[in-house]
Amino acid sequence: MHPQQITIAVDAMGGDKAPSAAVRGAVDAARDLEVKVVLVGREQDIERELEGLDPDPDKVSIVHAPDVVTMSDAPTVVFRKKRDASIMIAFSLAKEKKVHGVVSAGNSGATMASAVFTLGMVPGLDRPAIAGCLPTPCGFTMVIDIGANIKCKPHQLFQFGIMGDVYLRHIDGIKRPRVGLLSIGEEDTKGNELVKLVHHMLKDSPLNFVGNVEGRDVFSGAVDLVVCDGFVGNVLLKVSEGLGGALFDMIENEVQKLPSGRQGFETIQPAFLEAKKRIDYEEVGGAPLLGINGVGIIGHGASTPKAIKNAVRVAQEMVIKRVEYFLAEGIKEYENVIKSLAFTIP
Amino acid sequence: MHPQQITIAVDAMGGDKAPSAAVRGAVDAARDLEVKVVLVGREQDIERELEGLDPDPDKVSIVHAPDVVTMSDAPTVVFRKKRDASIMIAFSLAKEKKVHGVVSAGNSGATMASAVFTLGMVPGLDRPAIAGCLPTPCGFTMVIDIGANIKCKPHQLFQFGIMGDVYLRHIDGIKRPRVGLLSIGEEDTKGNELVKLVHHMLKDSPLNFVGNVEGRDVFSGAVDLVVCDGFVGNVLLKVSEGLGGALFDMIENEVQKLPSGRQGFETIQPAFLEAKKRIDYEEVGGAPLLGINGVGIIGHGASTPKAIKNAVRVAQEMVIKRVEYFLAEGIKEYENVIKSLAFTIP
Repeated sequence: MHPQQITIAVDAMGGDKAPSAAVRGAVDAARDLEVKVVLVGREQDIERELEGLDPDPDKVSIVHAPDVVTMSDAPTVVFRKKRDASIMIAFSLAKEKKVHGVVSAGNSGATMASAVFTLGMVPGLDRPAIAGCLPTPCGFTMVIDIGANIKCKPHQLFQFGIMGDVYLRHIDGIKRPRVGLLSIGEEDTKGNELVKLVHHMLKDSPLNFVGNVEGRDVFSGAVDLVVCDGFVGNVLLKVSEGLGGALFDMIENEVQKLPSGRQGFETIQPAFLEAKKRIDYEEVGGAPLLGINGVGIIGHGASTPKAIKNAVRVAQEMVIKRVEYFLAEGIKEYENVIKSLAFTIP
Repeated sequence: MHPQQITIAVDAMGGDKAPSAAVRGAVDAARDLEVKVVLVGREQDIERELEGLDPDPDKVSIVHAPDVVTMSDAPTVVFRKKRDASIMIAFSLAKEKKVHGVVSAGNSGATMASAVFTLGMVPGLDRPAIAGCLPTPCGFTMVIDIGANIKCKPHQLFQFGIMGDVYLRHIDGIKRPRVGLLSIGEEDTKGNELVKLVHHMLKDSPLNFVGNVEGRDVFSGAVDLVVCDGFVGNVLLKVSEGLGGALFDMIENEVQKLPSGRQGFETIQPAFLEAKKRIDYEEVGGAPLLGINGVGIIGHGASTPKAIKNAVRVAQEMVIKRVEYFLAEGIKEYENVIKSLAFTIP
């Protein structure tokens, strides 16, 4: 599909800085990215935010949604009480083929629940998972799940490994992705009960499983894919964010103490900013929710307009790359393995 | 106690680079730190490593232990099969007051089991936990547990909060430590079952509980203490290590691309190294195992001689600061809270 033909729904009410950041980011995306956006949320609020932004009427439209999911709502609120929430309406538009993908920086549990409820899952899969890419000195490592599933059953974690493998092969062209299972030691006796069970599933599977890996391996480039539950993955993601920022501050603090530090720092500042960019969530924008029958991008809760714009860019890429089609095709190859494990494991 | 009067047992067989790194590190500590060390392990192996190191015979001695715990041994192996392992003998020396503390870079589960079995717990506490200090731009944040308890009950996690609070107040002089519970969102509805239960325990306690915190808050200085289970804490620790190293590499890579980068980099290199030092486990050396009736320091599995030497330094400091005495005294203040929770929670 040509980029210009793609329309992305943006949950205008999702994120700590909504609706302002979501609306601005969507308008910027429509202007800079050759994409159409549909802002979904309270019409009045959206219109107020649009004032002065001068959006292109051919590329930016509004679909009204009376309800809003808050960050403290339980994920199930979307079917129990808030069927008219912006995130539900956004996925309904995708279901009706009025948009090609959805971006939300709101409550990620509710986003996942809305996606599954409205679009359904790729056949054979149990639960969706969020796939995040973390930088290594020479590329990146995909980590799945970074926050969708707080509690996972072993066969679900195994399926995340399958999804990641399929994605990396079909979308990123990595021939035989090296898959690691996040634990606290390389030995297969190390880890919690979940990890020990999943270790054996991965070991006996056709995946290129290299064994347990530790937190440090995420950034070393030793593997292409790290599998973990959404609680641990989310901690990992946010630790990286926090440490990244803190380290740059520490280096700057130390530089200030040097007699000629300021000058030296100015010389290397472009390099510094380039490295900083690689770990900046605003640049990344959002991470795909894999496993759903469609394109859903989860943005950071603290998303700025720039982050939302980049999340729209990610959604557009996913549509162009036909992620859901390739995921469904790839999963078929593993159909038998998935079935055998789904039925034998409690 | 005067530093010179302190004797520390070093598990010569513990760590990926044992016995070489452990023996060298212990000899360096005895030479540079005004401390005596006892090397515990296979006498022949230790003697071979000591050749050419010229240790001071008044400050370095050997206690033979025929058995060795490997990294893949289950923690309980020390009571079931390996009572004569180096780590068990090391803690027996502490029990007999022949040494004041123990350092091991070996299997941390087995080290914990040996410590509890031999020395016992501070009265009132259930399980020990490892307290690690992670750097912030202006100081550090203590994280407890960073690896001793893979699976925790809610009241145990609560007790880790108590231990951390007591340590920070009595040893580090922080008047009213701000305590955070590691989760994946600040809202008290966010997190896994364990976190949700512990949240309420901490909220109702006399601790200065600020609520749930996220991975990024570990490095921001927003709290003094972060409470989490040992699986998540260990992932957090190793992610920090890995990202720290990777970020410095990324900055260096980017600097190489600049025309005058090399020169600018040399100007600020001292600052760079200073910042690097702050996240370097070799400098930190080891982390205390809090809650046991004595001093036990857990070193990194990959400990170099420098790391072992610094772990001996940490053990010496813990002895000087009378950590076990203050911990026992501090825990008394919370006796009633601990008791009420230990009995009411499954």
